[in-house]
Amino acid sequence: MTQVTAVSADIVLHNAFVVTMDGALTVLRDGAIAVVGDRIAAVGPSADVLGAFPGAAQTLNLAGRILLPGFVNTHVHTSQQLARGIADDVDLMTWLHGRIWPYESHMTEEDSYASTLLCGIELIRSGVTCFAEAGGQYVSEMARAVELLGLRACLTKSTMDCGDGLPPNWSSCSTDDCIQHIAEIPYENQLVMRMKKIDHGTVTYLEKIDFLRNNLLAAHSVWLNESEISHFSNAGVKVSHCPASAMRMLGFAPIREMLDSGVCVSLGTDGAPSNNRMSIVDEMYLASLINKGREAYISGTTNPTVLPSETVLTMATINGAKAVLWDNEIGSLEVGKKADLIVVNPFKWSMLPLHDSIANIVYCMRSENIESVMCNGQWIMKDQKIMNVNEEEVISSAVKRATALLARAGINLPERMNYL
Amino acid sequence: MTQVTAVSADIVLHNAFVVTMDGALTVLRDGAIAVVGDRIAAVGPSADVLGAFPGAAQTLNLAGRILLPGFVNTHVHTSQQLARGIADDVDLMTWLHGRIWPYESHMTEEDSYASTLLCGIELIRSGVTCFAEAGGQYVSEMARAVELLGLRACLTKSTMDCGDGLPPNWSSCSTDDCIQHIAEIPYENQLVMRMKKIDHGTVTYLEKIDFLRNNLLAAHSVWLNESEISHFSNAGVKVSHCPASAMRMLGFAPIREMLDSGVCVSLGTDGAPSNNRMSIVDEMYLASLINKGREAYISGTTNPTVLPSETVLTMATINGAKAVLWDNEIGSLEVGKKADLIVVNPFKWSMLPLHDSIANIVYCMRSENIESVMCNGQWIMKDQKIMNVNEEEVISSAVKRATALLARAGINLPERMNYL
Repeated sequence: MTQVTAVSADIVLHNAFVVTMDGALTVLRDGAIAVVGDRIAAVGPSADVLGAFPGAAQTLNLAGRILLPGFVNTHVHTSQQLARGIADDVDLMTWLHGRIWPYESHMTEEDSYASTLLCGIELIRSGVTCFAEAGGQYVSEMARAVELLGLRACLTKSTMDCGDGLPPNWSSCSTDDCIQHIAEIPYENQLVMRMKKIDHGTVTYLEKIDFLRNNLLAAHSVWLNESEISHFSNAGVKVSHCPASAMRMLGFAPIREMLDSGVCVSLGTDGAPSNNRMSIVDEMYLASLINKGREAYISGTTNPTVLPSETVLTMATINGAKAVLWDNEIGSLEVGKKADLIVVNPFKWSMLPLHDSIANIVYCMRSENIESVMCNGQWIMKDQKIMNVNEEEVISSAVKRATALLARAGINLPERMNYL
Repeated sequence: MTQVTAVSADIVLHNAFVVTMDGALTVLRDGAIAVVGDRIAAVGPSADVLGAFPGAAQTLNLAGRILLPGFVNTHVHTSQQLARGIADDVDLMTWLHGRIWPYESHMTEEDSYASTLLCGIELIRSGVTCFAEAGGQYVSEMARAVELLGLRACLTKSTMDCGDGLPPNWSSCSTDDCIQHIAEIPYENQLVMRMKKIDHGTVTYLEKIDFLRNNLLAAHSVWLNESEISHFSNAGVKVSHCPASAMRMLGFAPIREMLDSGVCVSLGTDGAPSNNRMSIVDEMYLASLINKGREAYISGTTNPTVLPSETVLTMATINGAKAVLWDNEIGSLEVGKKADLIVVNPFKWSMLPLHDSIANIVYCMRSENIESVMCNGQWIMKDQKIMNVNEEEVISSAVKRATALLARAGINLPERMNYL
């Protein structure tokens, strides 16, 4: 057992299958965690931790459930949650000009708040305790919602300075502010090659202007060649791989090659109109499947050994923490780190039998297996109840706002079937 | 409203969003269904159906919930459910020789019964009312479990007559009995070309021997060329597309091309050690994403318009019914057909807002949205309770049998992390 000085613990969780995701990838078959304030005070065998903290305010016997670090979602558009379903099965130009830009440019601050609350509920229910916002317009409203939910987040404003049809009030920021989505689509590379007179795409240009640093989190990163992967690796750039969104809109990112080159690859969901499930649980499953399948196009046959479960779990936890430059505080269950953790109940039809618990977490777990979520030492979901907001009220308000917003923006969706 | 002669109804479900999947793809915004015995007696606007069947034994106001035909899963290995997690992240030869063959050849009849019960619970919870068994050893035990659960199924014995390391008692069947999995892997095509002296693979050979008929259900069908797709189309062969399993083990099936050629493509999960989620709900999401992404390798960029939601929903319902030659009885909500249906609750965090209900069924729905399932006029799941078996007992027995079976078969899995 490792522990800090013995003080009285607020919470002791014991009799758990503890997947620490520490440097040695330690798993405790019958493990426990003590929480003091917002921090982990001890991690070790149940008997040791119970012995060291006999008078904890709350002592929970997890009866063999799984304890994991909270997942880190490194690419989320919380303000797009009200737009789920408005842009499915359409081409990229319709997606952007006919749906997303009208939606976002008609959004109010209150809409953004409601959207972030609704999105936050889905994030929590899928085990996320920390996320990186990919950009919306009203950062203070996102912050208000995130604080209320009890989540941890890195928030940001989205910026664009050129593009046909761009809402006029968005084009006031400079180019330097606008570089976040990197090498998303082939056309982007062609444009950069033509405009900047370089021999490949965005990443080559960013390397040339010395923009690639270890504090850059590059989303998507689909259309990179080998030398650009080396640029990322050498500079310590972090990548947010968004499997669902990439499959749908962008292409197959060279994730195996990036991992082989030592690039820190994490996982993101992207926004609701690009995915549409906002669940890192599903992205883990997808990341593993898609990158196994992608090998069919590289080598002529799929490779089921690519991105094994332990790698995918690393991407969703400690790599996520590294991607948001917070791995000294979160991403693993270690003494001194913030108490961000999730309780998984694997004893249900969806995850049994448990021959290989790590594999089952990645391939079988559904959000319905996630029972409780703690962030910063506080339960933000307990026994599947969201703790800090009234979920029904959030949903009801968000749905009303979503309908009104679409009407205001003049977005009319074609009917897919014969409605009577 | 369409209805049969007015008799007293057993069940009337009203105030529902009814997605009939009939030939006109009719959707009733405020619709109802009357069930008499095992059949649908009426489908129409709520007011009409309520008026025609005033004295139904059970009348349920669904308060806007979605009614869909039960999903048809056209490729399931129910006997492999106890093997979930035994063969993740390993190459195909290890999968087969080190894990699946030892597992299956040490399985008893009682194991097969327990496995089918456990698998059946997952099928029901993901909205399946009918499935096609892909093959195990003990068909009578599968039948016993399926009957108890109240599911509808086409069962079959799996047969193989050659292959290095094949358990000896399996090689007694003739080649003619063994043709079901078609064009799974490139090596298969190479082998067939060499042995049978033809210019492409399995499908070309099967066409030559006049084996391709409209009663053939071909699983996977990944490595087909253009002319082989035409053979399928001309002969009326049905295909079971298993997106997860294909991504992991086989490759990218030319689904868009098959659909364009008029081939009836349905959806399957394959077995637990190939997927590992046994959920048509997830396969719908995957089918749409993967086939959008696959276009990146065909045309240089993904095509988000490929396999739109209505097509995917067709694959999971009426095409599934056609694939098992049962579309005169199931696959859509129409008068005279069997009452196989599911009730979806979309008013939860996972599916809201509902701007596009059809898209949200395919892209957002999770198994936790499926509230009730009816097969043959009987509720087999009601308000998420499995009706005909004691779920806890099934799970407990299956887990014990799974552990004992692995020990008997001598299957030891390597540890992925540092276990203490």
